[in-house]
Order: sequence, then structure tokens, then C-alpha cells
Amino acid sequence: MRVGVLTGGGDCPGLNAVIRGIVRKGVQEHGYDFTGFRDGWRGPLEGDTVRLDIPAVRGILPRGGTILGSSRTNPFSSEGGVRRVQENLAAEGVDALIVIGGEDTLGVAARLHAEIGLKVVGVPKTIDNDLSATDYTFGFDTAVNIATEAIDRLHTTAESHMRVLVVEVMGRHAGWIALHSGLAGGANVILIPEHRFDLDQVCGWVESRFKIRYAPIVVVAEGAMPRDGDMVLKDGTLDSFGHVRLSGIGEWLAAQIEKRTGKEARTTVLGHVQRGGTPSAFDRWLATRFGLHAVDAVRDGDFGKMVALRATDVVRVPIGDATARIKTVDPALYAEAGVFFG
Amino acid sequence: MRVGVLTGGGDCPGLNAVIRGIVRKGVQEHGYDFTGFRDGWRGPLEGDTVRLDIPAVRGILPRGGTILGSSRTNPFSSEGGVRRVQENLAAEGVDALIVIGGEDTLGVAARLHAEIGLKVVGVPKTIDNDLSATDYTFGFDTAVNIATEAIDRLHTTAESHMRVLVVEVMGRHAGWIALHSGLAGGANVILIPEHRFDLDQVCGWVESRFKIRYAPIVVVAEGAMPRDGDMVLKDGTLDSFGHVRLSGIGEWLAAQIEKRTGKEARTTVLGHVQRGGTPSAFDRWLATRFGLHAVDAVRDGDFGKMVALRATDVVRVPIGDATARIKTVDPALYAEAGVFFG
Amino acid sequence: MRVGVLTGGGDCPGLNAVIRGIVRKGVQEHGYDFTGFRDGWRGPLEGDTVRLDIPAVRGILPRGGTILGSSRTNPFSSEGGVRRVQENLAAEGVDALIVIGGEDTLGVAARLHAEIGLKVVGVPKTIDNDLSATDYTFGFDTAVNIATEAIDRLHTTAESHMRVLVVEVMGRHAGWIALHSGLAGGANVILIPEHRFDLDQVCGWVESRFKIRYAPIVVVAEGAMPRDGDMVLKDGTLDSFGHVRLSGIGEWLAAQIEKRTGKEARTTVLGHVQRGGTPSAFDRWLATRFGLHAVDAVRDGDFGKMVALRATDVVRVPIGDATARIKTVDPALYAEAGVFFG
Amino acid sequence: MRVGVLTGGGDCPGLNAVIRGIVRKGVQEHGYDFTGFRDGWRGPLEGDTVRLDIPAVRGILPRGGTILGSSRTNPFSSEGGVRRVQENLAAEGVDALIVIGGEDTLGVAARLHAEIGLKVVGVPKTIDNDLSATDYTFGFDTAVNIATEAIDRLHTTAESHMRVLVVEVMGRHAGWIALHSGLAGGANVILIPEHRFDLDQVCGWVESRFKIRYAPIVVVAEGAMPRDGDMVLKDGTLDSFGHVRLSGIGEWLAAQIEKRTGKEARTTVLGHVQRGGTPSAFDRWLATRFGLHAVDAVRDGDFGKMVALRATDVVRVPIGDATARIKTVDPALYAEAGVFFG
Repeated sequence: MRVGVLTGGGDCPGLNAVIRGIVRKGVQEHGYDFTGFRDGWRGPLEGDTVRLDIPAVRGILPRGGTILGSSRTNPFSSEGGVRRVQENLAAEGVDALIVIGGEDTLGVAARLHAEIGLKVVGVPKTIDNDLSATDYTFGFDTAVNIATEAIDRLHTTAESHMRVLVVEVMGRHAGWIALHSGLAGGANVILIPEHRFDLDQVCGWVESRFKIRYAPIVVVAEGAMPRDGDMVLKDGTLDSFGHVRLSGIGEWLAAQIEKRTGKEARTTVLGHVQRGGTPSAFDRWLATRFGLHAVDAVRDGDFGKMVALRATDVVRVPIGDATARIKTVDPALYAEAGVFFG
Repeated sequence: MRVGVLTGGGDCPGLNAVIRGIVRKGVQEHGYDFTGFRDGWRGPLEGDTVRLDIPAVRGILPRGGTILGSSRTNPFSSEGGVRRVQENLAAEGVDALIVIGGEDTLGVAARLHAEIGLKVVGVPKTIDNDLSATDYTFGFDTAVNIATEAIDRLHTTAESHMRVLVVEVMGRHAGWIALHSGLAGGANVILIPEHRFDLDQVCGWVESRFKIRYAPIVVVAEGAMPRDGDMVLKDGTLDSFGHVRLSGIGEWLAAQIEKRTGKEARTTVLGHVQRGGTPSAFDRWLATRFGLHAVDAVRDGDFGKMVALRATDVVRVPIGDATARIKTVDPALYAEAGVFFG
Repeated sequence: MRVGVLTGGGDCPGLNAVIRGIVRKGVQEHGYDFTGFRDGWRGPLEGDTVRLDIPAVRGILPRGGTILGSSRTNPFSSEGGVRRVQENLAAEGVDALIVIGGEDTLGVAARLHAEIGLKVVGVPKTIDNDLSATDYTFGFDTAVNIATEAIDRLHTTAESHMRVLVVEVMGRHAGWIALHSGLAGGANVILIPEHRFDLDQVCGWVESRFKIRYAPIVVVAEGAMPRDGDMVLKDGTLDSFGHVRLSGIGEWLAAQIEKRTGKEARTTVLGHVQRGGTPSAFDRWLATRFGLHAVDAVRDGDFGKMVALRATDVVRVPIGDATARIKTVDPALYAEAGVFFG
Repeated sequence: MRVGVLTGGGDCPGLNAVIRGIVRKGVQEHGYDFTGFRDGWRGPLEGDTVRLDIPAVRGILPRGGTILGSSRTNPFSSEGGVRRVQENLAAEGVDALIVIGGEDTLGVAARLHAEIGLKVVGVPKTIDNDLSATDYTFGFDTAVNIATEAIDRLHTTAESHMRVLVVEVMGRHAGWIALHSGLAGGANVILIPEHRFDLDQVCGWVESRFKIRYAPIVVVAEGAMPRDGDMVLKDGTLDSFGHVRLSGIGEWLAAQIEKRTGKEARTTVLGHVQRGGTPSAFDRWLATRFGLHAVDAVRDGDFGKMVALRATDVVRVPIGDATARIKTVDPALYAEAGVFFG
């Protein structure tokens, strides 16, 4: 049995732990051979492979990133891409493929399974924790820890200078990182994409904080937006940036708060720091278990499935369940955090 | 409404986060007053209280330990203890009591609820994660992170000197910390109380590691024991210590490995470092939510219950469910980790 | 003897450790009383004081920020400011003043000492490490550790996606943080204010890195500038920002690298995260010793002096020596790092 | 030019950074070839070598331990050892040797330089910071940070349970780690090998701490001893251990404090955790610079010298200067810390 492995999409702490889990279990318990494909779906598309055996996975457990490389290449987007994937897998003698990725990467896997019967097993990956069908994805806990540590540090600066500090964290479509790190870091305002915020209310919370001689921390997900979204454009700040990826809602918000409350406001955009480096213990544990269970699924011939965490168990669900819609923050859960606002 | 709060048993990162969650929600949303009782059940027993209002919980979220203090005092063990607890609670005008603790502390709460109708709500606490009825307890994730970081550090020393390094972690009756940190840290042997180990097999794993020019890390829970438990006593090492609390199974094991394999072996006992200091983001999040939901239970008059984590939801269960038996590591889960041994 | 204490300028990990050292030694060894002045020179200017005794400094050693607050207020800038400072100090019965601050705050102290004979002792503070007359200032080591950890994390993202990652660190006039964290983090390019960089050379280094299949990390001090400084303005990116404080040279540089090399480039601006939170062990040790020695200077009546680190000794130098000119990175030291570029 | 490199003695965070600095500078600036010798002096003695070129040092900067391995082998202790070292170096075509080690390893280098004219350059290494002729050695700052973080964590446990916590840190002959981490961690007692302690005084400090409702942390270097050293033996605790390396003065001290003050006391022995894992930014910077300057010394033909840190400069001193006597804590410096005792 020869099993292919690829990692696609944005990198995420824990990818290497998954790969190690797969190879250790596959080789030692089932005598499988493995072929690593480079840079997500680009590997099978172009026949770009990398050795993947026990020595190759030695020492990679605590390291961030992925030894296989990653990309957002989609074989369905290139002429004859699907056929080339099939030919390259056949040329390598690959019987089954373990695909580690998010919505897009797994979406390709699901389609190849449905359309050409490709024997795939999926492993969910998104640092934003917004994949349905799994309680948590690896990488998320690491990101939340990094963001929380940053908030801890910003508290002292905020209080020493009595300034508003706005922290922009990841989360384009879902506010999980903002919600968890905001709660854990003792933020005074948490803004998420699922709930359009009212700028007056935000400024009210900020001012109430100053009234008791404390300086507020505002945590904002990169995808959060004010109730009147047009004001972001009308205000012009975002528009003239040119580099939306860095100078986003956090900076706009700090400027607005400063203008309306008269209090000095500063922004910190955590950016890529959140997704690199050594994974937390939880993420290493989850990623390792995902790897082990993906091999079990291959052994059982249970293809078209994805491993997923349900409470403390790793289970299998149809890949399509995970990619059908994203998992957003429930309004009731967000409301729960409201007691700490202001 | 006046609500009492106490924390009992061994300290645990996240206790202060629970207390803060309770007070912030209770005061701001329901207008409750709070009375803190000092040092677990000693507080109600002796009428020793401490102010517990919004200013008292400011800034405590990231701090380990408990501002209320803790003890293992049991009112049922002292003559007229139960009556004195009742009188002191009445004297303070306390209508309901939120009890944060482990098996013993919650056991007292359950009994007082059953026997004298005390209006109690429980919050589970054990750094060992061995309480039934909840998927996780706060403090556990912090302990696992600390142990994992220590294992990371020990790897480099082991490899530089080609030595065996034995790491003794907490876990008297359950091996959760050993299992999680051992998996996350890439240990080559993990020994837990639930499964008596075979010393020959352990030495075999150690030797197979050296054969590929790597130095092994052995993670052992403080409560782990060899198949022939008598040999620990016969060997005499433990017996002559006098201080079993520090010089336990880890040191015995290193001595045995050194004797049998001829490889230098060293022990590190992590001890109290695992339970102190700032909580991880997960533990702050979990502890905060436990605090918020405990207040909900008080508001609903749902006494005799304990908050618990089920997947990503906080639910309520009878306190007795949690204290009836400890939650141990399932043999199948332990077997899963076996692929990494040796 | 009553001694006043104030902290001025930007906050810096270790300020609280200095304050604690002063109070512990002053009270316990010399029986001094202390008066804390709030928010730098604003305190003496407006007579705003805060209690400063043993209980007030309990537990503050590991905390970032300053319990006294800070500001950039300058009594020489306000009509009758100097006279009001004198009056307020007299009203409080303050015999001597310990001033903890950077170039500006200490400059005021030096002038008040020279002009009105104010009995001042200075403690140097700058996170940028750019004060003459001392080998190191506290806060710097913490900032370098935070920046290094961020660079560690960014390496894995850079390599997984084969992207250029530009990290902008503090250092408006001196490149100490960039140089130290760049060396410690294994950066492939380090750019500092003391040395105008050649954009072509930077792009050459970036490309040579990709040739050996590695992704480069560029560390740039916020005050670094290209040889042709006008190009930053001509390019227009900086100009249209409006918020120079956040969207600075790092973002401009990433845009230029992307345009010229065709490689994807991303920027991370570490910002305020570098100056908050718990101080490193070195900074706590240095700050504590500065506090102890400042009290010694008061006891010796050695006013107009500042404590300073020389190798491993704390010595005293005239305050003016520290504020006369900033300490920049020596060209030879910068050249030493050049072996790692590209 | 072919240059040999070896690392001897106990491992230390930063060894790999030195090796990388040597190879990067030697290859890129001078076109040197390098030969790595395995396991300290065992390498040249037995002719055991390892490839040492640019790819071999890639990615090792942040890793603890040493890729060359280490040992305490001494060629002077084995019959014909010196001759064999000479023969093996000649066989490898090695023109000069860079020796990274402590007192013993460098002592061999100095003797070989003096007796047979071996062209050696030394790099000082000791985690204890007790080598003369250099202000700091790499690894020390990392150890102090780890010990300080542990003390931070133990504070919360101490206070929650009102217990004495004794922390045993490294330092057999010099108390640098104890002094720095004790000061940085806010310890209430610091005991070092240079100053025999009075047990009554220690118990007095412990009790005075409890009087103000605080729980004391006692930091003790492994080599610290009571004034009456015989009492340690008479008490019998140490004697019966068999494993002096782990169950040392810390445990004895906790038992004595508990007996005399009646307060519960616990010991944590940090052990090997202090010397493993990723180096701090300072240690990476210092180790890298030591590597670069060792190559400069080879280039200059300046043999028999060792690189050393003086303030912020790296200088060269005769190897003998460093190994003549150990650098201990000055009584005045220790006295300075005394204000925090009790």
C-alpha cells in the first residue's frame, strides 16, 4: 500500500505533527509506504514529490509550518488538471491520498472522490476554527495563546499611558480567535464578523472604562465591520491604504475612537505571528491524533471521510459536511462575553 | 441575594478566573452581593470571610492561585462542624454558595446539599483532569503545556549526552497529564497509573531508541507502578527516602533503567511548577465560562448541580455524578499512543 | 528624609522593578519616606501624588508598565512650571527626587538640578537602548526577546509559503533592537537607522535566499531609510497613510521587494507588544539594581548623577552625560552581522 | 585552511549558535573548510568526525544542545592519548582547532597548546557563569530565565496554600543562577555556595514572611551549605539518598524548615530543564558573536587565546586566565540582595 500525503492552504501550527502521526503509524503498524506531494495540490498536479519516511519526520513534531510546503493551487482551475492528477498519482503508484487542508483544499478532495472515485481521507485544517463538523481544528489553540499573550502585554502599556489599545486578530469570516483571546486576555470590547458593531456603543464602552481610571483593550477580528459598513469606505482610511491586508479594520477603528472620544488610541495588528512557530500542547495532541486516525480510515477503506474532533473523541464524517458551510460564533455565546464589555 | 464563594483543595491555574467570572456576572447582571470565604471550607466553618466585589477581582484573570486561599478542611471531620457552617452562613446572610473544588471539596458540598438542603452550585477543579462528568477541567491544559515545554527542553540535553531522561509529572490516580504531555512532547515511553508497566519492556524501548542514535525521554505519572509493585519496595530506594513526595517513581525508574541498560539516566520531577503561574488561554476561557454559568445556575435556583464542559458547551450535572468515581485513561486511548513507544 | 519618585516617557518593562527596589531599600535600610508623583513631571507640576510604601510595591516586580503612570509633560514648557514644581515638592516635604526616564525626562531633571539646585538622582530608561553612558537599559532585553520569538514564528510561515516576511521592530534613531533580534532570530537582512540601505542590495539578498530554496526574513527598524530617502515619499505609500506610526517603512519595503523581485512579501509590525508585559529576568535584575543604587546615591547626597551599567557594575555618571547624545550602533558592529545577510 | 571544531562538557543553550557562527563566517568570508569532532575530546582522540558545512548548520540557531555531541573525555587520562589526538588531527588535515567548553575542556586545550603547540582557540562555555575572564557565558541567561519563570509560578502556589517553597537551582561552586533568578523572581531567601547559611536566620526570614500573611520562596543553589555542614550528614537525609545529584540540599532544607517553623515546606528541583531547549535572545547573540570572533582569532593566528565578553565587546584573553580559578559571587553583591530577604 502506498499512501500520498499533501498539505494545502495557509500554514498552521500542527501540520508537521499530523504528517509525523500518519507516517509513524502507517509505517510501523501497517507497513505502508508514503509519498509526500509538495505544495498542496500542486504536487499531484505537477508530479512534484518528496521522500516521506520515518527519518523524514524525525524532530518535526514541535516545529510550525509544513515540511511538505503548501499552496492554494486547484487542479479544477487548470485545463486537464484532474487528468494530470490521476496520471501522476498512478505514476507514483499511490493507492490512497490523505489531504490535510481547509475548505478549499478539502473541497477539491471531496470533488475528486465524488467525480473520479479518488480514494481520499481528509484532515481538517483552519487556524480560524471555522470548519463545521469538528469541535476544534489544530492551530487555533496556538493562535489564541499568542493573541492572549499579546493582549496581556498590551494591558500594561494601555494602563501606563491611559490609552486605548486596539488589537486586530485573525478571523475573516468567523470571530473564534477574537472571542477566545478576548475573553482570555480580559479585553473590554470584542468585535467579530458575525455581529456588526455599533461605533457609538464601542465608544461608550471605551469611555466607561476610563471613568474608573482603567484603559481599555479592544480586540477586533480582521473581518469585523461596523453596522454602517459604508462609513469605513466613506471615511476613506481603508480606501487609500492600498494594502488592505495589513491596514484594516483595526487601524480604522482606532482612528474613529480617537476622533470620537478624544482619547489616544493605538493599533497592533498581530498578523502572521499568530500562525507560525511551535504548536501548543493541545494542538500537537490534536494534530497527532488526527494523523493516527487518518491512517485508520485508510486501513478501513473508509474514503471520502474526514477525521473530526467531537468532545474528546476523534470520529469520521463525510468531507462534504465540513466544507458545506463555515462554523460561525453563535449569538448566544457572543452575548455571554458581553458582561465583560465596557 | 447574597452568594458565598469558596475554593478548596490543591491550587490550580484558573481559580481566579472563575471567581472573576462569578463576581462580574453576578454583580453586573443580577445585582448580587458576594461574600468570599477564606481557605475552602475553613472559611464557613470559622466564619472567616473576605470582601468580594468588582474592585476585588480586578486584574486577577491572568494570575495563578486563588485570592480566596485554599485548604483541605472538611466540616464533617470536626465536632459540630456542619452546624457551625450553617450558623456562619446565616450570620453572613448568605443565600447560596458556589463551591469551586475537586472530589473532596465538592463531596462536602453534595453532602451538605443532601443532608441540610444547603443551596450549593459546584464548579469542578482538578489539575489532573480526572473528574467524571466534565470533558476537561481548567488548570489541566496549563499543566500539560508546562510539562510539554519541559520535555522539549530535555530532548536537547538527552541527545547531546546520549542519556535517558525520565520526567515525572503529576497524576496520582490518572495519567492524563502524562499521556497528553508525553504525546505532545514526543516522549518515547509514557507510563500511567491505569496500566502497570513491565520494566523489561520499558528497558527494551529505551535500548531500541539508542540503536538509532537517539536518546529516549520517559514520561512517568507520579502514580505509575511496575507490574510487580513489590519490587519498588524490595529495591529499597523508595523506602529509605523518607520524602516520598519528591523522590518517587521517577527516581526509582531512572535507577532501574541505568542498572539494566547500562545507559546513564537522569530524573526531573516537575512538581509544583506544573500547578502555578498564569493559566493558558484555554484554561482562562474555560474557567471564566464556568464562573458565568455557575451564576446562571444560582439565578435559576438549580442547586445541587455542578457546571461541566461537554464538547464546547457548558452544561449542568448533579454534583454527585462528578464525585462518584474518577475519570481514568481508557485503555484504547493509551494503546493509541503506543505507536510512539521505543 | 522624604524622597519623591516619578517615571516619565514611554513605558518600559522593568519600571515597577525599579520602583520596588527604591522603596524596599529606602524604607528598610534607611527609614526614608516616599512620595510617588503621578504621570512623570505632571505629578510635581500639578501636585498629583500617590502613596508609595512597602504594601504599595508588593507583587509589582513581574508586572510591566508603571504603577506611577507616565507622561511626556515638561515643566519648562508651561508658564511658571518650574516654580510650581518647586512649590509642590516643598508642600509635600520632598527632600530629594529620583527621576526614572529617558532623554527628555532626565533632561528636565538635569536642568532643574543645574538651574534651581534640585536634588535629583536619575535612573536611565529607554527600551531602544540608545542612552549614552550605560551599557544597557532595562526593557531592551525584553523587547529583543519578544522580537526574536516573533521572528522564530515567522520563519515557519515564510518557509511553508516561500514568502518574504518583513518584520518592523522599534528603533527610531538607533538599531539596537533590530540588530540584536535580527542576529538572535537568524534574519537574512537587518536594516537600521544608522546605515541607509540600498534597495537593490536588499533585493539581491532576498533573491539569493530563494535560490537555495529558503524564504528570507527581513528585520527593519522603524527608523531605517533607503539610501535615496525621497523614493519613500515619491512612491507615495507613506505619504497617503495618515497614520505614519503604524504603516511605516516595513510596509513600504515589502511592497518594493514584491514589485522588484516578484516574490510575495508580507509585513508584520510588532508595535506596542514589544514594550508591554512581564520583564525578562535580565531586565528585572538590572532594574532592581538600578533602584537599589539610586537610593545609595540619595543617601550619599550624590545629586545630579544617574546610575548606569558598566559591564556588570552599577556606577554613577553625571545625568548630562547620558542625555548629551544618543548611543547608536557602531558601523563595525553592524558589519559583523553582515555575514548572515543573503 | 581546515579548522576543527569540538564541544565538550555539559550541554548549554547556545552551543549550536556558536558552531553556526563559526561555519558561516569561516566558509563565507575566509573559504575555510571545517571538520566537526564528535563528543568533545573523544572526537580527536578516536578520530570520530562529522561533516560541518553550511547545510549542516542550517536551522540550528534556535536549537538547544549541540549537533556535535559532547562528553567529558580527557586525552591526558588515556595512555598515548595526546599522541593519538595529534595523529588524528594530522590525518584529517586539521590546521587549527576551535574548542568550545568549560574549565576542563579548555584546560585540555591550554595544555595541548603549551605542550605540543596545538593551534587552538577557545570559546568559554558554562551555564553556571563561573568562568573568570568573561563577564557572561552563553546559556546562563537562558537558565536564569527558566528559573525565574519557575519561581513566578511557585509564588502563586505558595500563597494559595501558605506554604514555604524551596527551589533548588544549578550552581555547584558559584551562586550566579541562584542570585540572578532569586532577585528576578522576588525570592525571600537566596542561598549560595559562596556564603555558608545560618539555618536559624533562614527560619527567621521564613517566619517574618508569614507574619505579614505572605508565603516565602527560598532559592537555593545546589552547592549551598549550612554554616555547620556536618548537620547535613548527621541529619542523614542526604546520606541515605544514594542519588545525591537530585535529592540534595533543597530537600534537606525544606525538611529542616518544616521541622523548625512548623510550616509546610515543599521542594522543587529544577534540574536539567534549566540547561535544555531554545536559547534566550541574549544567549543566541552572545554565542553567535563568540563564534564569529573565534574565527577572527584563527585568521589572525592568535592561538592559545579564548574569546570573552567585556561589557559589550568581545575580546581575546589567554585560555589559562579563564581556567585558573572560578568566578564566584562577590560578598558585596550578595549583600546587596539582602534587603529582599525575609
